[in-house]
Amino acid sequence: MIIVLKKGVTEEEIEHVVEKIKGLGLAVHISKGQERTIIGAIGDESVLAATPLEALPGVESVMPILKPYKLVSREFKSEDTVLDISGVKIGGKAVQVIAGPCSVEGRDILLETAREVKNGGATLLRGGAFKPRTSPYSFQGLGEEGLKYLAEARKQTGLPIVTELMDPRDTELLCEYADVIQIGARNMQNFRLLTDVGDCDKPVLLKRGLSATIKEFLMSAEYIASRGNKQIILCERGIRTFETSTRNTLDLSSVPVLKEETHLPVFVDPSHAVGRWELVGALSKASVAVGADGLMIEVHNDPENALCDGVQSLKPDKFSELMAVLKKVAEAVGRTL
Amino acid sequence: MIIVLKKGVTEEEIEHVVEKIKGLGLAVHISKGQERTIIGAIGDESVLAATPLEALPGVESVMPILKPYKLVSREFKSEDTVLDISGVKIGGKAVQVIAGPCSVEGRDILLETAREVKNGGATLLRGGAFKPRTSPYSFQGLGEEGLKYLAEARKQTGLPIVTELMDPRDTELLCEYADVIQIGARNMQNFRLLTDVGDCDKPVLLKRGLSATIKEFLMSAEYIASRGNKQIILCERGIRTFETSTRNTLDLSSVPVLKEETHLPVFVDPSHAVGRWELVGALSKASVAVGADGLMIEVHNDPENALCDGVQSLKPDKFSELMAVLKKVAEAVGRTL
Amino acid sequence: MIIVLKKGVTEEEIEHVVEKIKGLGLAVHISKGQERTIIGAIGDESVLAATPLEALPGVESVMPILKPYKLVSREFKSEDTVLDISGVKIGGKAVQVIAGPCSVEGRDILLETAREVKNGGATLLRGGAFKPRTSPYSFQGLGEEGLKYLAEARKQTGLPIVTELMDPRDTELLCEYADVIQIGARNMQNFRLLTDVGDCDKPVLLKRGLSATIKEFLMSAEYIASRGNKQIILCERGIRTFETSTRNTLDLSSVPVLKEETHLPVFVDPSHAVGRWELVGALSKASVAVGADGLMIEVHNDPENALCDGVQSLKPDKFSELMAVLKKVAEAVGRTL
Amino acid sequence: MIIVLKKGVTEEEIEHVVEKIKGLGLAVHISKGQERTIIGAIGDESVLAATPLEALPGVESVMPILKPYKLVSREFKSEDTVLDISGVKIGGKAVQVIAGPCSVEGRDILLETAREVKNGGATLLRGGAFKPRTSPYSFQGLGEEGLKYLAEARKQTGLPIVTELMDPRDTELLCEYADVIQIGARNMQNFRLLTDVGDCDKPVLLKRGLSATIKEFLMSAEYIASRGNKQIILCERGIRTFETSTRNTLDLSSVPVLKEETHLPVFVDPSHAVGRWELVGALSKASVAVGADGLMIEVHNDPENALCDGVQSLKPDKFSELMAVLKKVAEAVGRTL
Repeated sequence: MIIVLKKGVTEEEIEHVVEKIKGLGLAVHISKGQERTIIGAIGDESVLAATPLEALPGVESVMPILKPYKLVSREFKSEDTVLDISGVKIGGKAVQVIAGPCSVEGRDILLETAREVKNGGATLLRGGAFKPRTSPYSFQGLGEEGLKYLAEARKQTGLPIVTELMDPRDTELLCEYADVIQIGARNMQNFRLLTDVGDCDKPVLLKRGLSATIKEFLMSAEYIASRGNKQIILCERGIRTFETSTRNTLDLSSVPVLKEETHLPVFVDPSHAVGRWELVGALSKASVAVGADGLMIEVHNDPENALCDGVQSLKPDKFSELMAVLKKVAEAVGRTL
Repeated sequence: MIIVLKKGVTEEEIEHVVEKIKGLGLAVHISKGQERTIIGAIGDESVLAATPLEALPGVESVMPILKPYKLVSREFKSEDTVLDISGVKIGGKAVQVIAGPCSVEGRDILLETAREVKNGGATLLRGGAFKPRTSPYSFQGLGEEGLKYLAEARKQTGLPIVTELMDPRDTELLCEYADVIQIGARNMQNFRLLTDVGDCDKPVLLKRGLSATIKEFLMSAEYIASRGNKQIILCERGIRTFETSTRNTLDLSSVPVLKEETHLPVFVDPSHAVGRWELVGALSKASVAVGADGLMIEVHNDPENALCDGVQSLKPDKFSELMAVLKKVAEAVGRTL
Repeated sequence: MIIVLKKGVTEEEIEHVVEKIKGLGLAVHISKGQERTIIGAIGDESVLAATPLEALPGVESVMPILKPYKLVSREFKSEDTVLDISGVKIGGKAVQVIAGPCSVEGRDILLETAREVKNGGATLLRGGAFKPRTSPYSFQGLGEEGLKYLAEARKQTGLPIVTELMDPRDTELLCEYADVIQIGARNMQNFRLLTDVGDCDKPVLLKRGLSATIKEFLMSAEYIASRGNKQIILCERGIRTFETSTRNTLDLSSVPVLKEETHLPVFVDPSHAVGRWELVGALSKASVAVGADGLMIEVHNDPENALCDGVQSLKPDKFSELMAVLKKVAEAVGRTL
Repeated sequence: MIIVLKKGVTEEEIEHVVEKIKGLGLAVHISKGQERTIIGAIGDESVLAATPLEALPGVESVMPILKPYKLVSREFKSEDTVLDISGVKIGGKAVQVIAGPCSVEGRDILLETAREVKNGGATLLRGGAFKPRTSPYSFQGLGEEGLKYLAEARKQTGLPIVTELMDPRDTELLCEYADVIQIGARNMQNFRLLTDVGDCDKPVLLKRGLSATIKEFLMSAEYIASRGNKQIILCERGIRTFETSTRNTLDLSSVPVLKEETHLPVFVDPSHAVGRWELVGALSKASVAVGADGLMIEVHNDPENALCDGVQSLKPDKFSELMAVLKKVAEAVGRTL
């Protein structure tokens, strides 16, 4: 950690900062320049993270040298993490596609959609049983009934299922049914929920929060990993910006940045990012080209009657057409699909 | 609701949209202009909110006419809501100040800080027993022990206490101790937590999410109100923008906008917004001047040894000096403090 | 245009709004619902754009139905615009690549770089003679001398040249040398400069401003088109968001949105968006996959000694390797390169 | 400047970085920690600003220690700059108010408005003769005719005039008429225009760009100062964020941050920031309370017929009422008005 002192800092102030740092067990290195005196604190930087050095008199700014995440960092583990979910390899050469409806709306429609996305080439099935909705007056999901339909769809198609956890009181229930537990964007910093899934042995798909920096995203993954669960899939799904022509702004630069910073697999959800089905195809192709390990795409048999996010759902035939192109894009960048 | 149809829409497409709307029990009004055909749907707009009209062929855009929130709106209740928290009136002529440490760190320091903020003129005491922290390696709060110290501080000073709820499994415990339950910025869209506090009879202080629009902020309040709990205090605490010289950007325009849109009291937390104690005074004065019903300010006896947010905490003497100026600003804009 | 009136609007207020609209030559249609009265103004909406209807008593909000841009809209001209720049077709099936250094730094290095990007497959050459720099103390470009070197590079390689215009007093000079005049992101709303290039007969490459919405971007293109110059290339180059791990956030969703809204060709500049050469490859592939008509990539022979933007420049060999992959991606999405 | 090297950096890479820095005339200090090797470059940091050290092999990140602006910094000149504009002191104890219409629309209406804002207590008159408009089809200003009316208004009222410069070809003309030259938000990084007004001897009111950081804002002021013109007034006018309930988000935290960083006077323009006259009063009070040296407020005699920004203009009587309250707020924070 580098501590920059104010111009005109006194010797007493310097001494006070130095003692503080030494008291935490770190070595100190002082460098007096023409304009500023700088203190380098050498040793385990994490103990300093909890200490408000900026609050000390004479301190102008504090610059950490190391990243605040460890277990999830590429520095900690250089080779890519590859997860195996009932035989589906996540994070390897093959690009995987999670597809299905936003929410589970009924047994028959779910089973039919599951068959169709399987035929289209999807390798995992998505569907929400518990739905976070902006309005208390909107459809909130079928709950356990929805989970049962998902399990039935898995049995029929063999597709592992991905479904969202919203409440720590449902963790046990969800773990019974799900193959992958999804933590939604609005819960990316619900630290209790992260701790809870960190104690499970199920893979977790963690979505990036609407206004989360990449650093915060990785810190949330670190929460899960620090409890012992290292089976984490990161999922970019758009960030909030001033632009209103799409629901959110899909930050595809985050994919190569994440691949540098972490060994964890990185997915992209273009459906929630753009919010309109007409744009999902173009952004899906871009996601594969940019290096994503997988996609999460909303598919609905009958979008105009969907109870949730109908506007952004692809019909099964459009999904199948898209998959054919995605296969070519994957091959162009040295992947398979 | 206004439905704008695409140029070149067919008669069949128009008919299909019209049937859809009529099927939901609304009247339809069609207006054919030179450039566009427009359909007005007349009646209870809320049934349309769940229907993805944008997904219908021929539809270009859909524009709601009414706001999606009801119970919390100024239109629903025109006079200001005034809460009474153990005799402290929130939302009336008097500007109230919640002060105290970020987290409860120990019994003695809390009791001392409580006495000092009371002397300085604070009318409520804040302090976190459960702390949401970006890093899993940071201090997470004292839990129930912290709640007990808060209760002791209340007994000694008479100040009602405000403390944060992070987990629905703690709701009952918190309700035993707290006078006001705080929902933090990162939980503003933790819909299960909102539902839970909506079922309590304790006042709730709801903080605006880092990337929440004012509309979403009010929808989260609506979640609470829709369960029966109408004792809600809204709290602006800065939004996330590109500017990095302050931790967040305090959106003071939100205060007069909220006062137009809702009857609920509106507070401001300048400490978390700016993240540096040197700036807290200026923004506190601005918050009172802009029309806030109250402030939430971090005060710590010994900021350099604080376990949390020491950099943004005022020392008690600075707090007292600030309160003297705030009193004058309040009077300048026709309020008391 | 739809005018929504406030709840409780008086008959006099309605009458006043109606007269105002009729006075502008439009027909009026009034619809009284249970909750709100709505006025539809039928006719040429553009006359209303200049009238502050929101300022009239009783008006709650005003919603335009039509887009504010005309000449550049897909509605005005449905087929794609294809430009021919010395034989290079822009906006057709082939994806074109503009490459070269950020700024022209000297004759020899420019000529060498020009040969290398030509060998790598670039079809146009970029290079700044006038440079907008955040600091007054940074290198500001070689001026006319730089333009001469660019002309020499064109002569040697046959590559048309793209160079930036910063000042209306240089328009004539630039038109003598350049094949395409670039308007930089910081000048996207320099309306006088837009007007000036609108009066030229040179193609214009217009970069999106750092905080410009897609609508504003198209309005700036409309400025140019409204003066008679319809040879416009739009270029996405990243927008400003809260994320700091890349210099800007490349908004690739803007490409399919622009292709819907306008007939003009759309390019992407990943170099300026991400600001680090390691990320340029991934984003270039994504840009081609998402449907861009071309790319603008910074290439420098000796990045560590570059006078400008060395950190984001590819070396010529990396550029050639990338071009080979881009060719495959282009083919995967039905284009050539 | 601190250069952080990558884990696993080689001795050759370290040597290369060291030579590079020494070659620029700086001393080097190397510190090898457990996790990272760090190089401190001691001496005139500005020579490094132009050198892309991040592009060198083995370099992880580069952290400047000093601010990139000099002449405008508080460190360079600790006492506040106070400008004298025809006797109106800007930057002293008195808060000054610039008021008037968005654009000059005609002689009579300007003269009347000028008289009224003078009566209300304004100390400078604003009015645009050249108007930057998002649409090429909107009113673009009266040009020199407008400047003449402004001069006449000054003669009648004694109020110095503030008017916007958009084009370097108008600099001379504007200098003849204006007392303060305004550089609008969209031109904050029109570096040629900044250089031009830096060569004038007229005070400049520089507005913050919509997506400009405070650092960039000060760098633009540095452009002007570096040419010799030190008479600069900074003006916060709202930044672009995701929030749409106000036109922009007024960043009042920028005021105390700027007062720390620079000796220049800081104004606030609440009218453009919020975009609705109903909100202008509250934000004006907040601006004075937060420590602004002045305000810029739009006032129009007949907002519903304004050719520009009628929605955000106060009528003269509302302006006078507001000024009475602002006087009290100014006194509450130790200023006069």
